[in-house]
Amino acid sequence: MTTLAQIGVAGLAVMGENLVLNMAGKGFSVAVYNRTTAKVDAFLAGRAGGLPITGHHSVSDFVQALERPRRILMMLKAGEVVDGFIAQLVPLLEEGDIVIDGGNSHYLDTVRRGEELHRQGLRFIGTGVSGGEEGALRGPSIMPGGDVSAWPMVEPVFTAIAARAGNDEPCCAWMGGGGAGHFVKMVHNGIEYADMQLIGETYQIMRQLLGLSAGRMHTIFRDWNSGDLSSYLIEITADIFDHREPDGSVLLERILDAAGQKGTGKWTVAAALEHGIPLSLISESVFARCISAQLEQRQHASQILRGPDLPFSGDQNHLIRDLEQALYCAKIISYAQGFVLLREASEQYGWHLDYASIARIWRGGCIIRSIFLDHIADAYERLPELENLLLAAYFSNRINKAQTKLRNVVGLAAMHGVPVPCFAAALSYFDSLRSVRLPANLLQAQRDYFGAHTYERTDRPRGEFHHTDWTGQGGATTSTPYSR
Amino acid sequence: MTTLAQIGVAGLAVMGENLVLNMAGKGFSVAVYNRTTAKVDAFLAGRAGGLPITGHHSVSDFVQALERPRRILMMLKAGEVVDGFIAQLVPLLEEGDIVIDGGNSHYLDTVRRGEELHRQGLRFIGTGVSGGEEGALRGPSIMPGGDVSAWPMVEPVFTAIAARAGNDEPCCAWMGGGGAGHFVKMVHNGIEYADMQLIGETYQIMRQLLGLSAGRMHTIFRDWNSGDLSSYLIEITADIFDHREPDGSVLLERILDAAGQKGTGKWTVAAALEHGIPLSLISESVFARCISAQLEQRQHASQILRGPDLPFSGDQNHLIRDLEQALYCAKIISYAQGFVLLREASEQYGWHLDYASIARIWRGGCIIRSIFLDHIADAYERLPELENLLLAAYFSNRINKAQTKLRNVVGLAAMHGVPVPCFAAALSYFDSLRSVRLPANLLQAQRDYFGAHTYERTDRPRGEFHHTDWTGQGGATTSTPYSR
Repeated sequence: MTTLAQIGVAGLAVMGENLVLNMAGKGFSVAVYNRTTAKVDAFLAGRAGGLPITGHHSVSDFVQALERPRRILMMLKAGEVVDGFIAQLVPLLEEGDIVIDGGNSHYLDTVRRGEELHRQGLRFIGTGVSGGEEGALRGPSIMPGGDVSAWPMVEPVFTAIAARAGNDEPCCAWMGGGGAGHFVKMVHNGIEYADMQLIGETYQIMRQLLGLSAGRMHTIFRDWNSGDLSSYLIEITADIFDHREPDGSVLLERILDAAGQKGTGKWTVAAALEHGIPLSLISESVFARCISAQLEQRQHASQILRGPDLPFSGDQNHLIRDLEQALYCAKIISYAQGFVLLREASEQYGWHLDYASIARIWRGGCIIRSIFLDHIADAYERLPELENLLLAAYFSNRINKAQTKLRNVVGLAAMHGVPVPCFAAALSYFDSLRSVRLPANLLQAQRDYFGAHTYERTDRPRGEFHHTDWTGQGGATTSTPYSR
Repeated sequence: MTTLAQIGVAGLAVMGENLVLNMAGKGFSVAVYNRTTAKVDAFLAGRAGGLPITGHHSVSDFVQALERPRRILMMLKAGEVVDGFIAQLVPLLEEGDIVIDGGNSHYLDTVRRGEELHRQGLRFIGTGVSGGEEGALRGPSIMPGGDVSAWPMVEPVFTAIAARAGNDEPCCAWMGGGGAGHFVKMVHNGIEYADMQLIGETYQIMRQLLGLSAGRMHTIFRDWNSGDLSSYLIEITADIFDHREPDGSVLLERILDAAGQKGTGKWTVAAALEHGIPLSLISESVFARCISAQLEQRQHASQILRGPDLPFSGDQNHLIRDLEQALYCAKIISYAQGFVLLREASEQYGWHLDYASIARIWRGGCIIRSIFLDHIADAYERLPELENLLLAAYFSNRINKAQTKLRNVVGLAAMHGVPVPCFAAALSYFDSLRSVRLPANLLQAQRDYFGAHTYERTDRPRGEFHHTDWTGQGGATTSTPYSR
């Protein structure tokens, strides 16, 4: 009689395969399944060889190979594939078995699946797994949420395979009920979009305005990686500038500037709209990818639309130093926006998210890992109810000192025709947030003028709504709310 | 026996009431219904007195009072209220009767309702009605879509009550099938958000940076209203600056700067995300309203976060002239984005939207009416398949000449700490669109580095995807697509 496996993994794409190898390397026995069964065989004959991994050609064999309560991690393409696989699993499972979705599922799907499986006596965990192929193999950042009763059974595996950061702390923590895990992972991905776009804009300024060589940019990013910006994305950017083709040319220059995206950035912005939270950097990052993909339209537009054609006349090294500071400021602002969204969702869904813990588990394994996250964790440890990261002493001090650099970069890019949507959005948010008076009084006057939408007054209590007959010809009726 | 009414209107909020009065004024007999029946009585005893309007206290009486095929216009709060009222109507209607939704419904709800009513032998039209309370009374802009077989029965009423523009042309035209009417109205509202936000940012610069008085701003906006910017929103803004309290003070300064919103702006951005179309000005406008509503957080932040505190040292009149040009440029860019979204949706849903016609019907009645729309109509008449308004000769000439003014405004605002999210987003989009090379090559390299997402090459055909083992330690597997 064969021994039962401790955990099952369904889906052997690169993330699934690498997580299996990671688990096996930590001593867990793993049963694997993949719909295209040749993939199972190839994996066992190849990378899985000699490890405590068993392969299965049917879902039923796969399920039977697991010790109870079964722990089944799905690493599948988000969407219908997940629902389809769950439908295959359910009749084969027994009460208390645990289904885990480690893909990039939408948090509302996770909420729905959790409720459905709960009604069938099963337990569901939706977990974010960040770190790409390398993270999956060597230690990802793991963000589980859902049925907390299942967590003690899953925790030993997840904790063992997770990345380590700080004082050997595992980059894995329970996020909260329902869709908390996938929501946090989604916001993580959105933040990653903005981090990457900000690096891209920095690169665009260096290339278009300063005409720096890839070699020079490699050196600059390598230097930055030993300063405040130290992070995985800065590190790999330095590497990328240094990567040569066999003929010695820079590979980066041969890569087409048409970005792809898989949807989590869009989801994050949609969630921000839903919750009424400004998330302008991530939103501009998503739009920047869309514009980049319109190659023909850009080609055409470049022949028609004119820029300023103004050569750079300042000091190169001075601007490079400003760029480092501007990037740091914009990063603070972007994370501030992301954490405000987490806070709003946590309150709305009753997740009780632990922001310090989230910042800590992002320090290792995942794409946005950086030393910067230590300061975020610190800020939330000091003040768990902090309403906005920008108001934490560490960050407000940093940004107050460096804000003029961000202004220089945005101003210079504007005058020289370099597109910096994210830097500009960062500055606009910063200046909006610190404005006691925004022009929304005019907006409210306009809305009341044309639509009788009413307004509040600075000299009257909040919640008291006024309407003015601006033209002398309007009615006394207001339009809010519609009478039914 | 009483004569049957030609059309029924359900919902007597300000828009409903005013549309009824408009119809009656054009000689149509109207039956009205409102759930709170006291509203029906008050309306008949008041504004409806002496006009061919009958009031009804039950849905059944209301339906029986209409000639066949019945034409019933719902002016109800979008959402469940509409579904609830339709459910009440359906059993009382007969084959071929026409239900019209004139509220701000989401276009996907309109698609669904159209299909449901069609299955029950009824005809459904979802129509945008723009113009606020005054427009409803004097002539709105009307954007109907849905079951085209019902259009000949509705057209005489809608054409009669619609605003007139240009050479006495009615501001009403059939948009297309399904949710086309409500989609176009939604994008109209989104554009309205950006128009208002841009005016607000202009006001913020005048107030915060130049310290202009309301009286001076009144004069400037009045002057602008006789130039290229001539439009309803500029006109009412001039009026608003001039509106005094009984004590002689400027009302605007007493209005609280906390913006409200009803959701169509958010919907427009969500649709843009769905379709992968950059809609950065509307998105920033929505976020700007969200930030404005966070009064306490802004108050708190203003004490912690520092600005540059740099006095304006330039020429006031020069900047005011730049602002006019910058506003015009940003407006072009905003409309360009909005029409790209219309184009994408039209292709996806098979609506065959007529962009020239849309621009023409927006010239009268609605909030965004302006002489500027004539040029948009011209551009699409010349080239119905124009991919982006910015590439039309009229607009590219205008913006090429004026782009330095937009740069000056964004640069100056950045250096002086005035938040200009929409101006900045406009400039970023313009500079992105005209960039032959964007930094998305770096982004694709990063995505391939950490996630094996693959990239295309400039020296290879499109659609050919490459993966590099950047670290020398990654696998050969790529992550796109997930294997199932």
